[in-house]
Amino acid sequence: MTTLAALANHQVRLARRPSGNPVAQDWNFTTEAVGRPAAGGVLVRTLLLSLDPAMRGWMNDGKSYIAPVAIGEVMRAGGIGQVVASENPRFAAGDLVSGVLGVQEYALVEAGQEQRTGLHKIDTRLGTPAQWLNVLGMPGMTAYFGLKDVGQPRAGETVVVSGAAGAVGQTVGQLAKLKGCRVVGIAGGPAKCEWVVRELGLDACIDYKAGNVKAGLKQHCPKGVDVYFDNVGGEILDDVLARIGRGARIVICGAISQYNNTTPVQGPKNYLSLLVNRARMEGIVVFDYAERFPAAVAELSGYLKEGRIKSREDVMAGGIAAFPQALAKLFTGENFGKLVLHVADAS
Amino acid sequence: MTTLAALANHQVRLARRPSGNPVAQDWNFTTEAVGRPAAGGVLVRTLLLSLDPAMRGWMNDGKSYIAPVAIGEVMRAGGIGQVVASENPRFAAGDLVSGVLGVQEYALVEAGQEQRTGLHKIDTRLGTPAQWLNVLGMPGMTAYFGLKDVGQPRAGETVVVSGAAGAVGQTVGQLAKLKGCRVVGIAGGPAKCEWVVRELGLDACIDYKAGNVKAGLKQHCPKGVDVYFDNVGGEILDDVLARIGRGARIVICGAISQYNNTTPVQGPKNYLSLLVNRARMEGIVVFDYAERFPAAVAELSGYLKEGRIKSREDVMAGGIAAFPQALAKLFTGENFGKLVLHVADAS
Repeated sequence: MTTLAALANHQVRLARRPSGNPVAQDWNFTTEAVGRPAAGGVLVRTLLLSLDPAMRGWMNDGKSYIAPVAIGEVMRAGGIGQVVASENPRFAAGDLVSGVLGVQEYALVEAGQEQRTGLHKIDTRLGTPAQWLNVLGMPGMTAYFGLKDVGQPRAGETVVVSGAAGAVGQTVGQLAKLKGCRVVGIAGGPAKCEWVVRELGLDACIDYKAGNVKAGLKQHCPKGVDVYFDNVGGEILDDVLARIGRGARIVICGAISQYNNTTPVQGPKNYLSLLVNRARMEGIVVFDYAERFPAAVAELSGYLKEGRIKSREDVMAGGIAAFPQALAKLFTGENFGKLVLHVADAS
Repeated sequence: MTTLAALANHQVRLARRPSGNPVAQDWNFTTEAVGRPAAGGVLVRTLLLSLDPAMRGWMNDGKSYIAPVAIGEVMRAGGIGQVVASENPRFAAGDLVSGVLGVQEYALVEAGQEQRTGLHKIDTRLGTPAQWLNVLGMPGMTAYFGLKDVGQPRAGETVVVSGAAGAVGQTVGQLAKLKGCRVVGIAGGPAKCEWVVRELGLDACIDYKAGNVKAGLKQHCPKGVDVYFDNVGGEILDDVLARIGRGARIVICGAISQYNNTTPVQGPKNYLSLLVNRARMEGIVVFDYAERFPAAVAELSGYLKEGRIKSREDVMAGGIAAFPQALAKLFTGENFGKLVLHVADAS
């Protein structure tokens, strides 16, 4: 066995705050010797990293629901890893774990940092490691609580979800179908739209790259929109606002169309539709529901096993070095399913 | 006594749909002979008319919470009147009534139109006729239900209200104070701001005409904003969004800054603050609460009598002919308190 001291930890650090689309100069690649865990600590080897639109926000300065990544700091990222060495009785070498590992090959989680990093063992009987970053991970939790607690769909209502083939959207759409709703997805390109309808079972999917979202909404939501789960913001949010029905609930989960803006965010000019329709628009931050994650994971893994929901991950090769390209794929919409970066195989 | 047939009914009708600020050519002044009520009908003489920002919306075509005023139709307006002749057992000559009378000197409310016009007797022991168009009328009901049911303030929270010296805002601010909140108004000019603080008892009032609303919010809402009751939209909505706290509720009651736009409505570019703060923005339409109006009127008139809330009406002279100028005053913010047009005195 290689000694820990002989292992190199390749890392990606934030070099500066990007303006618009992140570019190569925004990153520093560094190499450190791998540390040995002190009492209470755990050393984790990164296997998979999660690529999330929210990462773009973490790179900006300013108040948000979480502190920004500092300049010079290892880029924040959730991931799946395997315990290499443990001085913590809750973890043993070989365990598969999930947590905020950062964009690096090894993460040393020191005593007392378990909670901050959300480090916990994963049970691969409930789902694959990649699914633990998708439907059983933060995207799935966001979909579950955002839809149920904030969107509150009722059977027979019409639910629209943007980013319908993406990480959060795929689970939102399927959960809304299980609830007995009419569900219309919005996604980019015919391949994603076909998958959303044929594989996920949504009633329709509007290809926003083909153009007319307004007309698609009119066609597929003849009774108006009762719940809109918004992952994209921008024009599409305005198009849906123009079609909401009385008492509609709009879940603001993200606004990927706006994250690389160098101009101010595009505010929804149709927001007065909230007034006309006595509707509401409400934000969700998934961390607020952490206590209920285990129950939601159990429910979602049950659906997976029963084949009542499906999941799709887009696993990109290339390791840590490919992180900048992987992140860029998210914003061009090239990924098809939850985007995951492969870093190493489990031993 | 003059016979009814000898009476002329001067009316203001919508001549065309305005673009931006309504101008003289948008109105037609007409004169009709006063009709005699048929069985079940009531003839009402208009005493006071209510001037409301919502009127501007009623003049536009398109879907809203209420049908637009048709071209050629008498302009819609709520008002206080006195029954001149009645063939309806629920009303007698001399009764003071409130309802949608229209911008005309006499309103003939035919059998079956009572509900559509909301015609009901008013009790002047509960408040003056002008107060029945203000705190005991639609503005007061909007304030009461918008604040309580949608804003849901809790004692100790910080409430901000724009249009704080206006019809809805004056009651919102005082009800929030009664609830035990820290209340900050936003109004135009030092006279209104002084009144809001000294007479209504709000904790502070920011003069938006003097400039820096952002700085005022920072100074007067050190713990952030928990409830924002928005009557104005535009930049001020964005400034408040930048200061909301976790779980904040934004009540969308109106957007007077946007009603005369010839360009699209300015969407709130800071709407993603809803996400960061797990906050919500929700619209209110007062008619939804009609069943609960009598209880709210009783509560509010009690506060008036006990001196726990005050009301201010800006009663403009000039009768029907002055309607266009009266409406314009609303949008320049020249009115100070609930704007009411005097048409005739009670007999």
